[in-house]
Parts: sequence; structure tokens; C-alpha cells
Amino acid sequence: MRDACGHDRCFEDLAVGEAAEIARTVTEADIAAFAALSGDFNPMHVDEDYAQASPFKGRIAHGMLSGALISTVLGMKLPGPGCIYVAQSLNFKRPVRIGDTVVTRCEVTGLEPAKKLATLRTTCRVGGKVVVDGEATLMVPGSRSAA
Amino acid sequence: MRDACGHDRCFEDLAVGEAAEIARTVTEADIAAFAALSGDFNPMHVDEDYAQASPFKGRIAHGMLSGALISTVLGMKLPGPGCIYVAQSLNFKRPVRIGDTVVTRCEVTGLEPAKKLATLRTTCRVGGKVVVDGEATLMVPGSRSAA
Repeated sequence: MRDACGHDRCFEDLAVGEAAEIARTVTEADIAAFAALSGDFNPMHVDEDYAQASPFKGRIAHGMLSGALISTVLGMKLPGPGCIYVAQSLNFKRPVRIGDTVVTRCEVTGLEPAKKLATLRTTCRVGGKVVVDGEATLMVPGSRSAA
Repeated sequence: MRDACGHDRCFEDLAVGEAAEIARTVTEADIAAFAALSGDFNPMHVDEDYAQASPFKGRIAHGMLSGALISTVLGMKLPGPGCIYVAQSLNFKRPVRIGDTVVTRCEVTGLEPAKKLATLRTTCRVGGKVVVDGEATLMVPGSRSAA
């Protein structure tokens, strides 16, 4: 249901501490699709023999696939449709492997009313361990700036 | 051709100022594929009517699609296969639209031999204007740490 601003959620609806998450099991098909879409056929992602001989001992997902899952939480859930992505930092802590279930959580950590900017801590976990963390900054339409 | 380290390029081969780039025209199919892969069906990306009524006046690509192109340059060209993605910052400056040709350039800006860390400035441009900029940090295998 849309609010007075015409979006699912206006800047004024956000509160520090609010959070949303999604869970997604990464498949071999996801990695193949990401490679085809991005053009990133780095053998760490697509060549099991090469990856087996590497320190990771097997294929790993593209780091930006986790980045895409963060973007999905932001664009679909919190702040949700209508927000404008301003910046994202990503720290790749651990590899994500085929079959891993990535739980991606975004939590509002700061709100700057003058610029309608929201800051969110963005974290991807596998089995409770952080695989990617970082921070997102988004501009969120206010209730007086309806589209 | 692989170097003594067993990778296309070892840490010792890198020099500050070295750069690589790719060009890619973003298609409607790319945006649809990214939405299907990520689960990010934000209407700014997939609903032309909604996007027409927004400040962008039309659908825009997912920001992380540009992120994926950066990852492609890093993983395929510079530093290339064998490197480990440590961190990435992304500043989304302007929208990328269907039909835009994104030129993604990565340039080595710093080298930290003790940790085999390379820092690269990562920039996506459309028609010469910066649409995304940021910085990447990667660990690059040294010639004495062959896989």
C-alpha cells in the first residue's frame, strides 16, 4: 500500500534500527547466469578444476552477486521502491559457495532529514558468519516531495 | 600466458597507473536478466509506466549491474584471474539507461607489497560522463606464493 508520498515508504516512515532481510540459496545456475550477464568468466567462478587448485578449493560466487542481493533488499523491502541508490561499500570477508544460503540483512543506522538520506548497515551471512558487510546510502522521497 | 606465480599476472607485475577497460551497451534483456537473477524487481528497473512518472523519466539499470562490470574488468583483465576481491566502494552518480554504452575503467592507484594489496580507481562512464565511481581493493598473488 502506498503512502502519501506515492511510494511504499517515505523518508518520514523510516526509523533507526528498522531492518529487513531476504534469504537466498546460491545455485550453480546463479553463478553461470551472473557470468553470462556480467561477462565475468573468471575461472574462480566458472572453472571447477582451476578453483579446486586455488586456496578456496572450489568455485565461489561472484562477490557482486552478494552486492545484488543487498540491492534487492534495499530496492524491494527497505527503504523499498522509490528510493535512489547513492552509494554502497562492500567488504568481502568470506567466499560464498554453491549451495550456501545467503541471508542478506539491511538495517537503518542513520537518517539525515535535510537531505532525505538514509544510511543502512548491509550484511550478508552464511550459516551465521558474515560473508559481506558494508554500508548503503539512499535518498528516500519525503511525504512532501511526491513523485 | 601465465607467469611464474601460476596466474595471468602476479602482484609484482602491477604498476601504479596501469589501466584496463571494457565497453558494454546495456540492453533491456540485461536489466530483465539482472532482475530475475537478483530478485530485484524494483519498478524503476522493470516498470516503464512507473519509471516514466519518476524523476528519471524512464527505466534505469540496476546500479549493481555497473558494479558487476567493474568486477568483470578486475576479474578478467586487471589484476585478472587469481586475485581476491577484498573491498569495493561504489558512488552512483547518474542513471544508466537502456541503450547506454558503459565504459568501465579500472586503474591501479596503490600497491601495498607487504600485504600484496592493490587499490584501483574504478569508474563507469556513459558518453564521457561518470555514472559510477569508486575504489576496489584486491589481494593479488605474488610470484613466491604460487597456487
